[in-house]
Amino acid sequence: MPRITRQAEIVWEGSIARGAGVVSGTSSGAFALPTTIASRVADPAGKTSPEELLAAAHASCYVTSLGGELARAGTPPGRLEVHCALTIDEVEGIGHRVVSSAISARGVVPGSDAAGFAQAASLADDGCTMSALIRASATVTVEATLEDD
Amino acid sequence: MPRITRQAEIVWEGSIARGAGVVSGTSSGAFALPTTIASRVADPAGKTSPEELLAAAHASCYVTSLGGELARAGTPPGRLEVHCALTIDEVEGIGHRVVSSAISARGVVPGSDAAGFAQAASLADDGCTMSALIRASATVTVEATLEDD
Repeated sequence: MPRITRQAEIVWEGSIARGAGVVSGTSSGAFALPTTIASRVADPAGKTSPEELLAAAHASCYVTSLGGELARAGTPPGRLEVHCALTIDEVEGIGHRVVSSAISARGVVPGSDAAGFAQAASLADDGCTMSALIRASATVTVEATLEDD
Repeated sequence: MPRITRQAEIVWEGSIARGAGVVSGTSSGAFALPTTIASRVADPAGKTSPEELLAAAHASCYVTSLGGELARAGTPPGRLEVHCALTIDEVEGIGHRVVSSAISARGVVPGSDAAGFAQAASLADDGCTMSALIRASATVTVEATLEDD
């Protein structure tokens, strides 16, 4: 996998308190999503936030890492579901920081067993680009459950 | 701003090499986006990737930080545009890591001047939750340009 750059932008009209932004993935053109400060700090009300986008980045990075580890073990996945809950909190004196990201993975993996899936889940965390990013300053946890074929 | 948790998930069908995933923001329900390994490592072809989602998280976090700093300086923004280019690269022996995130901000800010906008842009970087996350293990740069009212 080569060096990769991906780009995004946000256009915000008006003040942060009363205005609104639209955040777009400009490398793909795949999304253009409204966001407000209220959707970030209170009820999302159908609008995304930086924290939700980071959770999506972590889940989608982790799933490729997990699927790669399962393939290396000779048991490529039939289906994987990865959930991420990303938390920020006020850190005294320095403002809000990412404090944790909790990954929960479920998989249907023909030929694998609980021990094999657990090992792949752990290796996937070691190899996941976003796990490494977040772990540099926060806690990353991984929970993995193998489902019946 | 209180402690905040936001959630996302991905469902991936088939192997990573030949299958595909759909990544969703489950806190808001605002998006459900297809992604493949090819869209991540080669041509996005209209599909998002973890790196594009992280770029979107950084841009959308930074814009609220910048707008907040401008308001504190007595010059709330009329319009802000923030672009982010997020790069991952292979780091010898440990796999791919986020190596840099480049923020570029443009603003129409009645009452501000180049020095005031530059100072707000720098303070915004200090206060931005995603800048802090990324800077813990990679390089964050900020370029700011004040536009005419």
